[in-house]
Amino acid sequence: MKPGILPILIGSFLTARLCCGQTNLPADDWKPATSNQPGKEYPKVNSERRVKFRIVAPGATNVGVTFRDSSVFEKGEDGAWYGYTRPLDEGFHYYLLKMNGAEVPDPNSLMYFGAQRWGSAVEIPAHDQDFYALKNVPQGQLREVFIYSKSTDSMRRAFIYTPPGYDQNSDQRYPVLYLQHGWGENEYGWGAQGRAREIMDNLIAANKARPFIIVMIYGMTNETRMGGLRDFDIRPFETVLIQEVIPFVDSHFRTLSDQPHRAMAGLSMGAMETKTITLRNLDTFSHIGLFSGGSIAMTNITDLAAFKAKNKLVFVSYGSRELGGNRGGDPKANVEALRQAGINSHFYVSPDTAHEWQSWRRSLREFAPLLFKE
Amino acid sequence: MKPGILPILIGSFLTARLCCGQTNLPADDWKPATSNQPGKEYPKVNSERRVKFRIVAPGATNVGVTFRDSSVFEKGEDGAWYGYTRPLDEGFHYYLLKMNGAEVPDPNSLMYFGAQRWGSAVEIPAHDQDFYALKNVPQGQLREVFIYSKSTDSMRRAFIYTPPGYDQNSDQRYPVLYLQHGWGENEYGWGAQGRAREIMDNLIAANKARPFIIVMIYGMTNETRMGGLRDFDIRPFETVLIQEVIPFVDSHFRTLSDQPHRAMAGLSMGAMETKTITLRNLDTFSHIGLFSGGSIAMTNITDLAAFKAKNKLVFVSYGSRELGGNRGGDPKANVEALRQAGINSHFYVSPDTAHEWQSWRRSLREFAPLLFKE
Repeated sequence: MKPGILPILIGSFLTARLCCGQTNLPADDWKPATSNQPGKEYPKVNSERRVKFRIVAPGATNVGVTFRDSSVFEKGEDGAWYGYTRPLDEGFHYYLLKMNGAEVPDPNSLMYFGAQRWGSAVEIPAHDQDFYALKNVPQGQLREVFIYSKSTDSMRRAFIYTPPGYDQNSDQRYPVLYLQHGWGENEYGWGAQGRAREIMDNLIAANKARPFIIVMIYGMTNETRMGGLRDFDIRPFETVLIQEVIPFVDSHFRTLSDQPHRAMAGLSMGAMETKTITLRNLDTFSHIGLFSGGSIAMTNITDLAAFKAKNKLVFVSYGSRELGGNRGGDPKANVEALRQAGINSHFYVSPDTAHEWQSWRRSLREFAPLLFKE
Repeated sequence: MKPGILPILIGSFLTARLCCGQTNLPADDWKPATSNQPGKEYPKVNSERRVKFRIVAPGATNVGVTFRDSSVFEKGEDGAWYGYTRPLDEGFHYYLLKMNGAEVPDPNSLMYFGAQRWGSAVEIPAHDQDFYALKNVPQGQLREVFIYSKSTDSMRRAFIYTPPGYDQNSDQRYPVLYLQHGWGENEYGWGAQGRAREIMDNLIAANKARPFIIVMIYGMTNETRMGGLRDFDIRPFETVLIQEVIPFVDSHFRTLSDQPHRAMAGLSMGAMETKTITLRNLDTFSHIGLFSGGSIAMTNITDLAAFKAKNKLVFVSYGSRELGGNRGGDPKANVEALRQAGINSHFYVSPDTAHEWQSWRRSLREFAPLLFKE
């Protein structure tokens, strides 16, 4: 090849790409996403962590997805629409299809509750996905249980994880973690996209965490799941949790029902709830986990001696891409201050993830081994 | 009013209706369906059992639903599309939205697996809906459990219903019903749209059924959930059920693991599976339930003496709207012939329902009280 030809070829290549609004061709190693409905080939994910969609909408004139910076969707030879995303972070992302102004679930995707709706999501394979993979290890159970709540006069759904061996070891009692979802999500989140069951089964199989029970309930009392956080009053939920759910769990499951064996954690709004509720119920909870939702500053603690006597752990985490800005003080500095004050405090940053489930799966993986050490 | 005016008014009324392709105005007593996503006002159901939809699709030119004989969808003053169905049967119906040739889930509906997809459905209030309502009675649990299957080298999801008191009565053992879904459905069906948990909790609370365990697994081994029934080979599923799932359940749950305390039932394809598997495993199952999927003719029984000695119940049911035609012989006559031969046989017809879940909910309500009588 003569000198001078190569730049020309590259120039043509770029022009060809730019004509279609794309700056480079995606790698052609697409594989069906694990979050697809059974038997569905699309969406597909490639090694660049892009997602390619196939949408059957013969009469539509304008088709896309809610991921920003996606390619322009175009009709293929089979009449279906095709398009793909920018490279996404590892992990789990909610989305919807856009069709001529309508936003609807993708019929190819499994359905998850987030952003205040049951809708679509895609799983991007992660380099560390083994820790939340479903494996042939001793299995816990995820139990759907309804609890009558007198304060709200309603039956409230709880998902309760019981660790492997719970049914067999009938004379053993277990600590309990109350684990909350984020705003716009619900009690399904941790057991479905959160992979809490797989994470715990795998940690326990590797002898990295003590077996404990996890209780997951809806973190608000607006049964319609509507409305914003601005006017959110935590007290009705606190009543449900403290006065109704905890007594139910302690009377229906073989729990260790004392304060040293009860933890609370949550993500985002769930972290804010955890902070508020644990700080004013020091006699109820000994271990605290705040994932992507603030930290505990020294000024939050009204009685340091009491806190030090009763609290066994403060764990704070964030995704690396969401750090920065004012989050009620620098979380890392707050954790360090607690540690200096003699409180067992840990800070974790999930690499290359944002305010999304991959950060929270990793947070649970880091948090669980620290719980209920005797 | 003068004579002659009334016919003219009626004539005008009919003309006005006919101009819009509608023969009568639907009753204006619409209420949000209980199958809606949290906080969603539409779809709505009226006292005529019609369903009215609101679909936000500003750029679409052609919007509808998969219910036949629905009204023509038209844009309302708010820019959304509105339309409604013919009167539907009481109970549960799958559907999808149609938008310019695309078929997609309705973002307003909860998602259910049927017709080989996670998609939308609507619940039409039934005159007898109390028997499957969620009530503040002693609650069973619906447990999601994964079972390793050697024959398929896969982790298989099971939903296992344990009756109220299972955890507390730790020295009590329970009979087991293996309960199968229909073709195009999966292991979620009976616990979600089938309301098996609510039906059992309510029957047990009313002292109408003995507490027993129910095991619900996927009834095929094509993990992609694709393909038709024509080439369906039941043997891989039979291997999973008989050689893997039953031993797992008997070793992980407090079952009464002898033949008199093990039943199998199913709907549609699940009934056909039940018939095939129970007839060649008489030493495994004592009670048989066939819902909308055939019956047992005398000619199906190769050794009547052995069958009479081992079988304790044959239950056959259909929805009234699906009876007729050749179903491997008249099911009622087949049941009567079994009874004449001294076999404990029952035939049930669900009034005014078709090959749908309301028939199967009622079938379980009728079947469960007949099980495991000592």
